[in-house]
Amino acid sequence: MIDGEIFLGNMRWPDVVAAAAAKPVLILPVGAIEQHGPHLPLDTDSAMVSWLACTAARQAGCALVAPTLNYGVSLNHIAFPGTATMRNETLCAVLADLGESLLGHAFKAIVFLNGNGGNNVAVASAAAELRRRTAKTVANIYVAALIEEAFSVMESGIIWHADESETSMMLAIAPERVHMAKAVREMPKPIPLYEFKEATLTKAMVDLGIPATERVTKSGTIGDATMATVDKGRPVVEEQLKTLTKILKTLAAA
Amino acid sequence: MIDGEIFLGNMRWPDVVAAAAAKPVLILPVGAIEQHGPHLPLDTDSAMVSWLACTAARQAGCALVAPTLNYGVSLNHIAFPGTATMRNETLCAVLADLGESLLGHAFKAIVFLNGNGGNNVAVASAAAELRRRTAKTVANIYVAALIEEAFSVMESGIIWHADESETSMMLAIAPERVHMAKAVREMPKPIPLYEFKEATLTKAMVDLGIPATERVTKSGTIGDATMATVDKGRPVVEEQLKTLTKILKTLAAA
Amino acid sequence: MIDGEIFLGNMRWPDVVAAAAAKPVLILPVGAIEQHGPHLPLDTDSAMVSWLACTAARQAGCALVAPTLNYGVSLNHIAFPGTATMRNETLCAVLADLGESLLGHAFKAIVFLNGNGGNNVAVASAAAELRRRTAKTVANIYVAALIEEAFSVMESGIIWHADESETSMMLAIAPERVHMAKAVREMPKPIPLYEFKEATLTKAMVDLGIPATERVTKSGTIGDATMATVDKGRPVVEEQLKTLTKILKTLAAA
Amino acid sequence: MIDGEIFLGNMRWPDVVAAAAAKPVLILPVGAIEQHGPHLPLDTDSAMVSWLACTAARQAGCALVAPTLNYGVSLNHIAFPGTATMRNETLCAVLADLGESLLGHAFKAIVFLNGNGGNNVAVASAAAELRRRTAKTVANIYVAALIEEAFSVMESGIIWHADESETSMMLAIAPERVHMAKAVREMPKPIPLYEFKEATLTKAMVDLGIPATERVTKSGTIGDATMATVDKGRPVVEEQLKTLTKILKTLAAA
Amino acid sequence: MIDGEIFLGNMRWPDVVAAAAAKPVLILPVGAIEQHGPHLPLDTDSAMVSWLACTAARQAGCALVAPTLNYGVSLNHIAFPGTATMRNETLCAVLADLGESLLGHAFKAIVFLNGNGGNNVAVASAAAELRRRTAKTVANIYVAALIEEAFSVMESGIIWHADESETSMMLAIAPERVHMAKAVREMPKPIPLYEFKEATLTKAMVDLGIPATERVTKSGTIGDATMATVDKGRPVVEEQLKTLTKILKTLAAA
Amino acid sequence: MIDGEIFLGNMRWPDVVAAAAAKPVLILPVGAIEQHGPHLPLDTDSAMVSWLACTAARQAGCALVAPTLNYGVSLNHIAFPGTATMRNETLCAVLADLGESLLGHAFKAIVFLNGNGGNNVAVASAAAELRRRTAKTVANIYVAALIEEAFSVMESGIIWHADESETSMMLAIAPERVHMAKAVREMPKPIPLYEFKEATLTKAMVDLGIPATERVTKSGTIGDATMATVDKGRPVVEEQLKTLTKILKTLAAA
Repeated sequence: MIDGEIFLGNMRWPDVVAAAAAKPVLILPVGAIEQHGPHLPLDTDSAMVSWLACTAARQAGCALVAPTLNYGVSLNHIAFPGTATMRNETLCAVLADLGESLLGHAFKAIVFLNGNGGNNVAVASAAAELRRRTAKTVANIYVAALIEEAFSVMESGIIWHADESETSMMLAIAPERVHMAKAVREMPKPIPLYEFKEATLTKAMVDLGIPATERVTKSGTIGDATMATVDKGRPVVEEQLKTLTKILKTLAAA
Repeated sequence: MIDGEIFLGNMRWPDVVAAAAAKPVLILPVGAIEQHGPHLPLDTDSAMVSWLACTAARQAGCALVAPTLNYGVSLNHIAFPGTATMRNETLCAVLADLGESLLGHAFKAIVFLNGNGGNNVAVASAAAELRRRTAKTVANIYVAALIEEAFSVMESGIIWHADESETSMMLAIAPERVHMAKAVREMPKPIPLYEFKEATLTKAMVDLGIPATERVTKSGTIGDATMATVDKGRPVVEEQLKTLTKILKTLAAA
Repeated sequence: MIDGEIFLGNMRWPDVVAAAAAKPVLILPVGAIEQHGPHLPLDTDSAMVSWLACTAARQAGCALVAPTLNYGVSLNHIAFPGTATMRNETLCAVLADLGESLLGHAFKAIVFLNGNGGNNVAVASAAAELRRRTAKTVANIYVAALIEEAFSVMESGIIWHADESETSMMLAIAPERVHMAKAVREMPKPIPLYEFKEATLTKAMVDLGIPATERVTKSGTIGDATMATVDKGRPVVEEQLKTLTKILKTLAAA
Repeated sequence: MIDGEIFLGNMRWPDVVAAAAAKPVLILPVGAIEQHGPHLPLDTDSAMVSWLACTAARQAGCALVAPTLNYGVSLNHIAFPGTATMRNETLCAVLADLGESLLGHAFKAIVFLNGNGGNNVAVASAAAELRRRTAKTVANIYVAALIEEAFSVMESGIIWHADESETSMMLAIAPERVHMAKAVREMPKPIPLYEFKEATLTKAMVDLGIPATERVTKSGTIGDATMATVDKGRPVVEEQLKTLTKILKTLAAA
Repeated sequence: MIDGEIFLGNMRWPDVVAAAAAKPVLILPVGAIEQHGPHLPLDTDSAMVSWLACTAARQAGCALVAPTLNYGVSLNHIAFPGTATMRNETLCAVLADLGESLLGHAFKAIVFLNGNGGNNVAVASAAAELRRRTAKTVANIYVAALIEEAFSVMESGIIWHADESETSMMLAIAPERVHMAKAVREMPKPIPLYEFKEATLTKAMVDLGIPATERVTKSGTIGDATMATVDKGRPVVEEQLKTLTKILKTLAAA
Repeated sequence: MIDGEIFLGNMRWPDVVAAAAAKPVLILPVGAIEQHGPHLPLDTDSAMVSWLACTAARQAGCALVAPTLNYGVSLNHIAFPGTATMRNETLCAVLADLGESLLGHAFKAIVFLNGNGGNNVAVASAAAELRRRTAKTVANIYVAALIEEAFSVMESGIIWHADESETSMMLAIAPERVHMAKAVREMPKPIPLYEFKEATLTKAMVDLGIPATERVTKSGTIGDATMATVDKGRPVVEEQLKTLTKILKTLAAA
């Protein structure tokens, strides 16, 4: 968990300016504590985004990683015990404040690396606000948007939540945290105009918000977690890593 | 400009409940007052979104149109005289308040029909907040997201602002408001990782915000307005209309 | 509806600085969408204030007109279907933001021309806030305060809402929008210390707020709309125009 | 300063319900700490409004007096040492909170008795907000609005600030606090469209805000304090008292 | 109640700069209107803190006293009639605004002298915010924290609210305001981990908030008011005075 | 880092209700990312409070641990590179939101376990706000307040920041993260009335805020880190653990 090369939290303050000169992009991972079905832990998003941030930072060689913000906006899942949430405006305020203070030091750019779809509105608002406060580069990246091709290995026809794809990715990253024996298949009850297909590939013409989870699933899974395998997860996280690494390099070189 | 059949503003209050029973979807068009190059008026977005709302409402037969909110978020264009803007949180508050009061009466669903990309973050926030306040359907539609195919008639290789596509659409809707003699071609100065290609077709992996307009253009046009024709504009607005009409019918039937 | 001489919305940005030099006062009309009895449309206030702004601007020759803000604070009428409202603090924020951005360009002064009594507190707050943000002149004008004499032609003994005076004015401005056949007479139920006489001529010693409309009227009319005539309306709108025109000239010359 | 009959602050909690049953109107005096020329103390508004509240409450026999809020909005006077101010939204929040808690007990109505013109916008906003929070009567009374006739004894042709009228009233209430030897005459520098005549009698067609005091006066007096006499002050405060007493009785009986 | 030497409210503005040069520390007393048992008045905190401020200012010779803010945060006592309260964020805003305006003039330091434990969180927040806005010294002093030794004269084993200590202090300051005949003894119902011993001497390891008063007492007294005597009160207020006077001198000399 | 017995983040949602029934107290550790001298890492506070939370939870057997909020209020240290901070109101909002959502599920009480003195005002405000929103127990514990005796082993005469005590504690918890070779001794420049002695044992009569760190130290250490030893750190963390464990048991049993 501690790596003096890339973790801001592990540095001493006199070393920060030189480190930021060498690695001018700062990644701030944003996770969530929310239900992930009967087989994945509540901190799945935080764990995955933390892993992605530090692995990509190591590969890119031009980025540092700030400590993960472990909580996000999970209003849709609030009916499920264990879920924690901020309001949209609270998450927006947190990220804008943290970004402003961190960019005040030596960094050239900050990346809000967001691991939870429920955070999207707040992170976009925070990025807009932070750009208003500073002239530096503020990038908002939702991890699911980093994947263009690798989801094609999925077979269940839906990429959504605590499902084939998310479980496969977790199997690739931290298999010991997945209780495959408890994984279930539960397809969502249909909602007019709402497409539960593949959030990141489908261009949504209509934003209808994220439905309250209990309206469409009992288990918390939306999709088919039973079809998950480590072999499906690996290419997905590899594409994420490859794309993110390339973005980090471009930001550092800009 | 006044049409007793679909315009909420033209109704008397005792008629509203019956009208909303017959046409249960309410469209609230959201525009902007911002620079649109040397050839298009400041209220281009408001004019286009108003036209789209009322034409689609007439075709669909199941929607009413509330008066257009003539102002939006145009922070990126603020260096250009005549541009007016709210802050993101202000637009969010306006739409959430208006939506809450209007949905308190007889409507089943509200559509924030947004004509300006700069409004996107605020409208999404408002829609999320409004969903928190009410159990009714709140749809957030950005007009550019209604087009999947028709942009293929454009030739300049970029679909952005006060350009070939927007000018063509305005020629199709309100040709008397376009000063083609003043139209210019100005390609944007490149920004790393930022793709000035086709906002609505490209899946943006990285949200870098909207750059301050004066960084990338002098004229206010980003693209090539000189290539605009009414023949290019017509299929685009027709696709918009067709898609929106279909959405309105689905929302009304849900 | 479009007039290149005075409408800011119809201008192209490169023309704004010269236009504002010639016509240094900017009018921002503020309306409302609220019940106006069984015979007047929901957008009565917006329609009247828009007409007044552009007619006075043309007569004065020293003012431009920004697009009307079609919505205001109509909390008192919220029980009547079709009424839309913002909270006071929301309208205050909108006007302060818009005013700040518009005054940042070439104008010398801004006039919030307010057509709805329910907006008064918020517009006054916005004007105060905007003066704190800028050194330019910010004038807050409630249209009913522009009349000193002409209301004397009214006969029903009360000047209030959707009544003899308002209906007469609408008959003078846009007769096709008045359904005189549906006009009614309904005198308000009395409220201690509250004077339903003539809002603009009476010096209120005690501000008791605007009572919830449903407490004092069933029809939405407070007064006698059946006595309205175009001949009564004409001198009223003429006095409004004359007074406003004079004010605009003074502001431009200051 | 302490009077068990009317001062809420001097009561013990077990006596409050019975006291409020007997005297159902609660007056909350709102003052200011701001410059009042070279001859009147900084707390002039607080002193005068406190005196008026308790004298009227004694005469009316149906009202209690809460402790005076000693501070208000004095942004216009801020250039003068000793002036304290809140922002408008702060005063609004204070009064809405205090009113809500006090009305939660036994009172039927609350009167914000405001002694400072600079407070007007905030007190009106607070009253509107408090009416939204509670169904009880909320009255907003500006002390200068209580006078219709008695100002006619003034001779200097202007009724404004730290002047003939205000000094005369202070001579009638607390002569020992007036340094007549230091009183000055200073007429305000003219401002276009701004009438320094008699704030409470003139119907202002245009609200231009309160000008920064240092723009129009050096001494802080706006008017002629040298013409003040106790004989001019007495009828003014007597009219105020008489009018307020009548209002309190009406509110109690309603 | 009026003392030209130390009361800011009694000064004329032209004298303030010289006064602040001679007495560079400004005390802003913060009180409360809240239940104080059956024998002490609602304004006990305001009265005591006002007395302490002006007595210490006179003894120290280096401080002025601003008018007392008569209201505070009394959420815990709200079930008892006569109690008024602001929300924490409101009191914070008031004090930050007032402090900012007052420090903008000639003072070197401001002391928020707080007489009510319920105000502690808000006053600390305000002091922190005010330090962010200005470079001058902002001291937050809770009157109970000024006593280290003198409470040893108390015999009832608890120092809390409207009790032996507070009643004794009031007997020493304003005996005519104490109804000893109505004083009662009521020990609080125990709450786990919550120590009703001596707020100011006990280092609280766990902050559990202030319990709603009605949970622990019926009379409003928490402790034994019947054991109060003027002889117990005198050393306590003397220690407060002595300590505060010393602090004021140090602040003035810094 | 992962322990299925006590970490909420590692649980699956269907297990939470039973877990909370068995362990009804939820600890939410609050850290900071701020300079800790040349020898301690930026995340020292987060690391220490996380360790304390999980160790005490294991010993007590009645508490779960939510993921650590890695960021806090570090405004005083902001001049030192690597420091991140929220504003006070932001941290307050975050904790109130998270607490409200987490207490909505099965827990009986929440403990904000705060590891950074700079967070104190915001955490106290959040706890107060959360108590207003819910009827459950909200405890605010500052880790330094848990120590009454063990600091007596310290020799340098000051217990402050990145010093003998903090370094000793870190040596006891995570010795591999301490660069003793870089540890320095730097006594703070004196500030009138401000006691740099032992924050947790000294009763502060005057709250002067936390001074900007760069005013009193160059290295970031305030005290003598060179005197730190693991033998001094061990009894301190043991007392913290013992006291906290006892508190957790009492809260669970209440």
